[in-house]
Amino acid sequence: MAYNDLSWSPSEKKAARAAFDKALEVALASTIAEFKRKADAAATPADLWEIEEYLGQRRRKIDRMFDYRYSQLPEVFASLIRAEYLDENLLSGLSQEKREMIHRFATWKPRG
Amino acid sequence: MAYNDLSWSPSEKKAARAAFDKALEVALASTIAEFKRKADAAATPADLWEIEEYLGQRRRKIDRMFDYRYSQLPEVFASLIRAEYLDENLLSGLSQEKREMIHRFATWKPRG
Repeated sequence: MAYNDLSWSPSEKKAARAAFDKALEVALASTIAEFKRKADAAATPADLWEIEEYLGQRRRKIDRMFDYRYSQLPEVFASLIRAEYLDENLLSGLSQEKREMIHRFATWKPRG
Repeated sequence: MAYNDLSWSPSEKKAARAAFDKALEVALASTIAEFKRKADAAATPADLWEIEEYLGQRRRKIDRMFDYRYSQLPEVFASLIRAEYLDENLLSGLSQEKREMIHRFATWKPRG
């Protein structure tokens, strides 16, 4: 079965939404913490423009990663696990089929 | 005489460069100080994106204001005085004609 043909039960949707929101919270909190470190250390105009660039990159990356479409969620969850924004255990409310699929995506490595 | 036809003696060029560099230093220092205040107060993702926007605006505004072409300098100095980045006394090395012109630009007010 193609991952974008999966059906999501109401309870799975609820579990998915909670995991997604939690991962977003983690990603944003880590961005704020990193920003604060950079801002504290900033001393020159060049440091400021580098922080501007950093914030733009983070904003675009978070926009891109956090795509809540059911057709995309298995890949989205896998990328959030890889980025350490999502604890895989938070997906226990999903079917075994979905969890195995996400785990496979998250741990997939291209042949060297 | 049109202000962009003025001639600049070597000593005036030196005085203009020093005043320009000092104003740039003031503008950048004020940007860093304001950024530090905003960064200290930042608590939410929205605060971060507002700071990103603030930095971009400041960077573009400084790029636009600090235009070191002799044809533009009287207007540039006038706008730097208005923005309080430049102390008019730093222009004492310029001819009286230039200083009067810059003062007129700096204090010009449109009719209400």
